Amino acid sequence: MLLVVFGSAKLLGEVFERLRMPGIVGEILAGILIGPGVLRWTAPNDVLNALAELGVMFLLFGVGLEIKRSDLLRVGRIATLVASLGVVVPFFLGWGILAWWGAPRVEGIFVGAAMVATSVGITAKVLNDRGLLSMRASQVILAAAVIDDVLGLLVLAVVSGVARGPLNLPELALTAVLAIGFTVLVAHWGTVAARHAVPKLAARLRSSEAPFHIALILLFALSLLASYAGVAAIIGAFLAGMALSESATQRVHDLTSGVSELLVPFFLAGIGLHFDVESFFTPKLLEMSGLILIAAVISKLIGCGLGAVSLGRVDMLRIGVGMVPRGEVGMVVAQIGLGMGVIPKGVYGVVVFMSVATTLIAPPMIAWSYREKTE
Amino acid sequence: MLLVVFGSAKLLGEVFERLRMPGIVGEILAGILIGPGVLRWTAPNDVLNALAELGVMFLLFGVGLEIKRSDLLRVGRIATLVASLGVVVPFFLGWGILAWWGAPRVEGIFVGAAMVATSVGITAKVLNDRGLLSMRASQVILAAAVIDDVLGLLVLAVVSGVARGPLNLPELALTAVLAIGFTVLVAHWGTVAARHAVPKLAARLRSSEAPFHIALILLFALSLLASYAGVAAIIGAFLAGMALSESATQRVHDLTSGVSELLVPFFLAGIGLHFDVESFFTPKLLEMSGLILIAAVISKLIGCGLGAVSLGRVDMLRIGVGMVPRGEVGMVVAQIGLGMGVIPKGVYGVVVFMSVATTLIAPPMIAWSYREKTE
Repeated sequence: MLLVVFGSAKLLGEVFERLRMPGIVGEILAGILIGPGVLRWTAPNDVLNALAELGVMFLLFGVGLEIKRSDLLRVGRIATLVASLGVVVPFFLGWGILAWWGAPRVEGIFVGAAMVATSVGITAKVLNDRGLLSMRASQVILAAAVIDDVLGLLVLAVVSGVARGPLNLPELALTAVLAIGFTVLVAHWGTVAARHAVPKLAARLRSSEAPFHIALILLFALSLLASYAGVAAIIGAFLAGMALSESATQRVHDLTSGVSELLVPFFLAGIGLHFDVESFFTPKLLEMSGLILIAAVISKLIGCGLGAVSLGRVDMLRIGVGMVPRGEVGMVVAQIGLGMGVIPKGVYGVVVFMSVATTLIAPPMIAWSYREKTE
Repeated sequence: MLLVVFGSAKLLGEVFERLRMPGIVGEILAGILIGPGVLRWTAPNDVLNALAELGVMFLLFGVGLEIKRSDLLRVGRIATLVASLGVVVPFFLGWGILAWWGAPRVEGIFVGAAMVATSVGITAKVLNDRGLLSMRASQVILAAAVIDDVLGLLVLAVVSGVARGPLNLPELALTAVLAIGFTVLVAHWGTVAARHAVPKLAARLRSSEAPFHIALILLFALSLLASYAGVAAIIGAFLAGMALSESATQRVHDLTSGVSELLVPFFLAGIGLHFDVESFFTPKLLEMSGLILIAAVISKLIGCGLGAVSLGRVDMLRIGVGMVPRGEVGMVVAQIGLGMGVIPKGVYGVVVFMSVATTLIAPPMIAWSYREKTE
């Protein structure tokens, strides 16, 4: 199973690199190809899901290691604007399309909520592979993706509340406070604390790899705290990486790369594995899928682009394109809707298609938008 | 779950290092402590088992990377003798003790088969951590452990055949041919093939980490082939590492270390997690456990030591001690016996106790036997 998933991901990744396309697209397509939709060689299971989740955690941790807290806080205001408009525009466009289509209100707001998601892992991997993380647009994208995750959580909480019955406002407020509090606290104070504590602690431990062990424990602990606070575990992983970015040695970077090189293909192929094309053989659903896909791309381009209007046209395009991939995050929202019984199997399929398709379209667009490296 | 297992393993490992004991013992004890027997914080599950198995695969792969094929083939004859006597003595001693105890014949031969096992991962980790892999005794241990795995497989096949009914000799012969053929072929020709093919292949691929990706694919492929051939997957992993030992770059070593540092604690703590002490509260079983434990240590010391008599007393001791840990391999044999219904729960508990206890006793003994590094 490991051989099939890893081998096919790396093989198709190589094929795509040779076609001058981002290898990441090949790795996701490998998952579709070997998955239940096409060749049926393998299907998602507990172990593959765990490896995929660990993979995206290490991906974000590694990206965090490259990012200084001060860089991210510097772009905080613009990133907040980008994230907010990148939530509002897709949500209402998705809801509007389903309403126009004649779907019940609750289906519309769930599709809207799924369109709010941003899969920061995909964009971060493209930028990291090309050494573009230090550019201003990249930092806005990362900061906005973190904020988007918090906002997306709140949208999902509201939407689920509406679907379930009367909204529980105190519970909603608690969710908001926890999620925002955790993210702001760790982003603000994490680096300062880590810069002081980690080297001192590592020096007192016997193991020669102690700095890496401490990094892993911080990664697991913040991921766990993040999911307690209601945010995605990967946000905790990213913040753990950022907290260590100023104190981590080259050895910690190298060892982290080893884990990422092994596990990230399972995350990428895993997105493809969850894509089952058979549910798309009705012309009506195909039509809706096309419409939702176009709306998903345009709404992030416009929403996020508008939020970055002060940075000029080149960065507006980069930021808009960078926020397009929905990846695993959009699928999770659709799964929650399916699990609550508020969206039918067909609409679930439309959202999965939108999530995977935006994830496949975005990497070449990101690469193209960054083709001139001058700012 | 990851945080609890990894964190407690590293914490107890550090405590043991400070007590001047091998950290590996602390990591196994951490598994016992947090497992179902004591604190009940976590229990073995599919994901933890998969991480543990991946951990021991990467451990053996990393050890293989340090070993040259020529070194291992040089000690081949002595290692064969060490492995053979290390199979015969424990098997008959274990069987004899159970017969003397009045247990049915089939129980006796299963306990004997479990005592044949050698957990090469444990010894290899101790030797690797202390930089002792290049010493002659270490190379005899590694080669003998590989041969022991093949012999152990054959013993298990015979024992299971006896338990099931009439022995199927053609099937047994096929098992032997497959296992021996795979091991000899890969050990003999693997390095030659890898030395020629891998650098050429890596140079033609686009990804900058291509050598590591090829190494991982070889690791997964040989592990899979090994289990098809009936040998343990870790033997395939070890042979994959050895095949690459002459062509692997420093970068491949570093990235492999990253994965090992993350996953090996799950292998070590996983051994502890499978240890449930509650089944030992009858005095009779405690007595039998003590007897079997003493027999397990002495039989490997004598058997393997005698096999290495031509190397002198220091190496005899090192090799005898190095083959003592039964680890996960002994437990697997006991689980097969339990699954076939031929050994009762109590005897299963005795074997698990023997497997874990030898694994805890051996590391300090290995460290002590190597205290003078002169040969």
